[in-house]
Amino acid sequence: MLKIPRIIKARPLDQELGFGKHLTTSGRMMNPDGTFNVERQPLSRWDNTYFHLVSMSWGRFLLVILLCYLSLNLLFSLVYLGIGLNQLEGLQPGGFWDNLYGVYFFSTQTLTTVGYGSVHPIGWGANLVAALESFTGLLAFALITGMLYGRFSRSTAKVVFSPNLLISPYRTGTGLMLRMANARKSELIETEVKVLLTMNQTDESGNLTRRFFALPLEISKISFFTLSWTVVHAIDENSPLWGFSSQDLLEANAEIMVLVQGVDEANQQTVHTRRSYTGDEVVFNARFKPVVGRNTKGLPMVLMQQIGAYETLH
Amino acid sequence: MLKIPRIIKARPLDQELGFGKHLTTSGRMMNPDGTFNVERQPLSRWDNTYFHLVSMSWGRFLLVILLCYLSLNLLFSLVYLGIGLNQLEGLQPGGFWDNLYGVYFFSTQTLTTVGYGSVHPIGWGANLVAALESFTGLLAFALITGMLYGRFSRSTAKVVFSPNLLISPYRTGTGLMLRMANARKSELIETEVKVLLTMNQTDESGNLTRRFFALPLEISKISFFTLSWTVVHAIDENSPLWGFSSQDLLEANAEIMVLVQGVDEANQQTVHTRRSYTGDEVVFNARFKPVVGRNTKGLPMVLMQQIGAYETLH
Amino acid sequence: MLKIPRIIKARPLDQELGFGKHLTTSGRMMNPDGTFNVERQPLSRWDNTYFHLVSMSWGRFLLVILLCYLSLNLLFSLVYLGIGLNQLEGLQPGGFWDNLYGVYFFSTQTLTTVGYGSVHPIGWGANLVAALESFTGLLAFALITGMLYGRFSRSTAKVVFSPNLLISPYRTGTGLMLRMANARKSELIETEVKVLLTMNQTDESGNLTRRFFALPLEISKISFFTLSWTVVHAIDENSPLWGFSSQDLLEANAEIMVLVQGVDEANQQTVHTRRSYTGDEVVFNARFKPVVGRNTKGLPMVLMQQIGAYETLH
Amino acid sequence: MLKIPRIIKARPLDQELGFGKHLTTSGRMMNPDGTFNVERQPLSRWDNTYFHLVSMSWGRFLLVILLCYLSLNLLFSLVYLGIGLNQLEGLQPGGFWDNLYGVYFFSTQTLTTVGYGSVHPIGWGANLVAALESFTGLLAFALITGMLYGRFSRSTAKVVFSPNLLISPYRTGTGLMLRMANARKSELIETEVKVLLTMNQTDESGNLTRRFFALPLEISKISFFTLSWTVVHAIDENSPLWGFSSQDLLEANAEIMVLVQGVDEANQQTVHTRRSYTGDEVVFNARFKPVVGRNTKGLPMVLMQQIGAYETLH
Repeated sequence: MLKIPRIIKARPLDQELGFGKHLTTSGRMMNPDGTFNVERQPLSRWDNTYFHLVSMSWGRFLLVILLCYLSLNLLFSLVYLGIGLNQLEGLQPGGFWDNLYGVYFFSTQTLTTVGYGSVHPIGWGANLVAALESFTGLLAFALITGMLYGRFSRSTAKVVFSPNLLISPYRTGTGLMLRMANARKSELIETEVKVLLTMNQTDESGNLTRRFFALPLEISKISFFTLSWTVVHAIDENSPLWGFSSQDLLEANAEIMVLVQGVDEANQQTVHTRRSYTGDEVVFNARFKPVVGRNTKGLPMVLMQQIGAYETLH
Repeated sequence: MLKIPRIIKARPLDQELGFGKHLTTSGRMMNPDGTFNVERQPLSRWDNTYFHLVSMSWGRFLLVILLCYLSLNLLFSLVYLGIGLNQLEGLQPGGFWDNLYGVYFFSTQTLTTVGYGSVHPIGWGANLVAALESFTGLLAFALITGMLYGRFSRSTAKVVFSPNLLISPYRTGTGLMLRMANARKSELIETEVKVLLTMNQTDESGNLTRRFFALPLEISKISFFTLSWTVVHAIDENSPLWGFSSQDLLEANAEIMVLVQGVDEANQQTVHTRRSYTGDEVVFNARFKPVVGRNTKGLPMVLMQQIGAYETLH
Repeated sequence: MLKIPRIIKARPLDQELGFGKHLTTSGRMMNPDGTFNVERQPLSRWDNTYFHLVSMSWGRFLLVILLCYLSLNLLFSLVYLGIGLNQLEGLQPGGFWDNLYGVYFFSTQTLTTVGYGSVHPIGWGANLVAALESFTGLLAFALITGMLYGRFSRSTAKVVFSPNLLISPYRTGTGLMLRMANARKSELIETEVKVLLTMNQTDESGNLTRRFFALPLEISKISFFTLSWTVVHAIDENSPLWGFSSQDLLEANAEIMVLVQGVDEANQQTVHTRRSYTGDEVVFNARFKPVVGRNTKGLPMVLMQQIGAYETLH
Repeated sequence: MLKIPRIIKARPLDQELGFGKHLTTSGRMMNPDGTFNVERQPLSRWDNTYFHLVSMSWGRFLLVILLCYLSLNLLFSLVYLGIGLNQLEGLQPGGFWDNLYGVYFFSTQTLTTVGYGSVHPIGWGANLVAALESFTGLLAFALITGMLYGRFSRSTAKVVFSPNLLISPYRTGTGLMLRMANARKSELIETEVKVLLTMNQTDESGNLTRRFFALPLEISKISFFTLSWTVVHAIDENSPLWGFSSQDLLEANAEIMVLVQGVDEANQQTVHTRRSYTGDEVVFNARFKPVVGRNTKGLPMVLMQQIGAYETLH
């Protein structure tokens, strides 16, 4: 049974976020890693192949490439077997597996353009297939080169966020705080952050609806994001979170979305990243522990593993 | 015979679109896919080669590459034939076709740098041509690599639009509606849409002229274009479409252009796309059917094939 | 002897262009192709190598690459000669030129990784050099691939400008006009143009100084630059060109700079281009001839070769 | 012992720079080359590999690539040795070093896909390893190609700054001046510069704290950065540097940061660069010597080596 959420007086956002107003699911809209809980049926099977290949993990990518190499090679091997071993000088015909073994490695030598020459084609058919295979091989490696560079140049910011939002003492009251740092070696400059709150509210007719609020921040843009950054929303009377308890957040199915944008100096491009927090990831009455230490040269060092470290207050 | 179009009181655009005012063709200015009905005479034959090669379909691109490979290879083969087979160790001179067959496959082995070695050059001429051919081969594959990456990195948004504009009930009146969704796996953020109307109007002197109008939208920018988006222009007294019938649209040779701009998160670039509708693609008194279903995990799923599905109202 | 230029009442630009105020050369600042008449002493010889390689003409680029290939190959050949032909199986030692001929083509087969194998290294030295040479070859072709893609992806707008500025009848007076068109197949959108005038003026102390003026345009931004665009500056009382004769322009050493900026849809990047005109390229009392014809399908076609065609008026 | 810094009346910056307020180190925040004196502990060892490989010097990059080639090759050689020389036709088994020598160069011929064929695999094991090695070789060169292009396309502005800031006579008073020029052949357009001052100040409670000030500039944006640019901050009553001596700057541990942003015409991208100066790099009562000469054609030439040349005034 849905509890009636706390009524608040803060004004919801006019600007649409693109989620619609009627989507009051019990789950979250945005996953912690910033992807959305929405599926878009692809138009065709090949539609997103390039996107998948450049966004999957390196291990998986190399495995996919290796499997393609081995299967493509097998395919050509079967064609050579069909044409007959008498068109490949240097191979002695034998049983099926012996023949396959022979043509398979001739095929790898052709596909990779090694071409030792100890086995080589002597008939029309085998020569034609070998010509196409070496061409295919070069084309495939041109494709792989393109995809590798595509993987390198995907300019995604890698910002590490604290796993929790804290409600900490701030000035004379409290503030909602999150901490983040740039995990890349290249600098992020002109970095901006926006924090959005979405939760269930009853509208003027008393019906439950989904509302969105922008949470004003103490500092929302910095020139150099070289140290860690503690983003602070002061919870004063104008805040939509004013007077909220942990229970209120859960009952309203609250979700807090953090949107970060900056210029990555490695390639001078504007990059975007984001993170989402649900009500159970908000810790009340806690404070972040220091995250900046000193390295062996005495320079400030951001301790990435400590980004979320906090202590509770009594 | 040109009918006198309906006179409207909405103000035309001051800002130029670039089409000029006197272009009152009976056909459309923009094709449904967003290209323009204008040809620009190229300055030279090679001017747009790269553009064509990266924008043609994959099937056609691979065919062009294959044909280039086969013809380039034939060209080198003819040079070897001219030099004479006595400069190629491993080939037995014979009839013309036998000789061509021999050099053709020696040539493929050189162009792709397989180089089995069963045939190899032994004289000055053949050695020189082989040196140039293998160099040409590597250069050609470097070119292909560049073009493949060019194809991958063309950051075009792939937005699917409803094939029709609908005039649907909206609030107390009606609205012009179109529906669109992002067909790519990568997210589009900060997406903006503009809708322009162009139609024939009589100017103050009573002459027929082409006028452009911006149609104000209920929501023209969304942060996350992750679901489908129904773009709505309310047809009230200030709308240039106020009181228009289907017949009026056709007589004014109306064309409605939808311009979409957003940031593609795959490469963090701003992308543009557009679509055009003519009067006969506007359906009066109809309503879009739902386009968001649930996938097997219970998450919202945008059904791309349904993007244009509508029902007529009685 | 410097003539006193016409005194005008239009206000010069506050914003600096970067040319300084004291640079009153008799020549032009900007060449017709948009490059500047300024040299910047490079810090080192290699500093601009990449820039030169990606910006030179295709013919020259291919020549440079070919010469590098031939010389690099010669270099390795001389190393093999130094090591001795007894380390290369398949070559018969002979006179110097015979030996060079032999190792030169062995070297090309190694550098391009063809490796027929009819000649192959058998000693430590030759094996080591061959290992380094094939590595160098692959590295060099990786470099060339990078440069080829760099050449492709240099997103320079190719806007064709009329070779002359015209002073044509415009409304009740005259206007300064230039015509331009996009010579690329890919569309330019959101195109903006600025026109700047620079000329010698006497300052309040009566000294000759260089002044810059922005010339206001009738339309300075268009959404779609798909047809040709006639850019118009109305010469009214507020124009710095009000009342100027051809002679006045020459005496003031006037230079008119046209700066164009737009988004190239091929790669969705903002591109810039520009052109400069001196006083002797301004034609008084003339009018552009039509530049848009119809192609065989009846669609408008921009006739690029006609972009500057004009007729004089009597 | 920390001296009490001069108290000034200029207003510090509201906008955060990202350095925090409490960081009053005695050292500098930004190094002269624009990097920061902050370390960010990486999350994993491989995290910044690509960044390092594309940002290290060319000499070091080539060395790293060469060492990878030689070690990868050694690794495969040891595998072949483990499999046994009887699987490699063309090698005579001998002592360990003789065998290693033999397989090492067979391995280079496979990794680079030269494949002379004088040595070639004849057993399952060697064939399989050779198939994987040639695949690895192609993959590695695809990776190198990607990295080479990544190195080329890193669009970093190369702006040369004067090594010193000068306090020079300016109008009726003095000004803080720095000189800079674009060391690249490609033009920088729409170039903007910001100058920030940070120094220790006592806050209202009398505690030492770090304050940031923006220094207003006479000209902060130029259209064409084709000549050198002398950036000037007038030291008037409103300047935070009003009345400062060299000693004051040192005692306040002052640091002046210069941030430059422009559009590089080579690839039409916005690029950023910066430089930092400490108090001991500020020269009082000096003036820059001319930096623009004439080349042999009589055109203005920026003498890069002279960018910091100044003369002291008495």
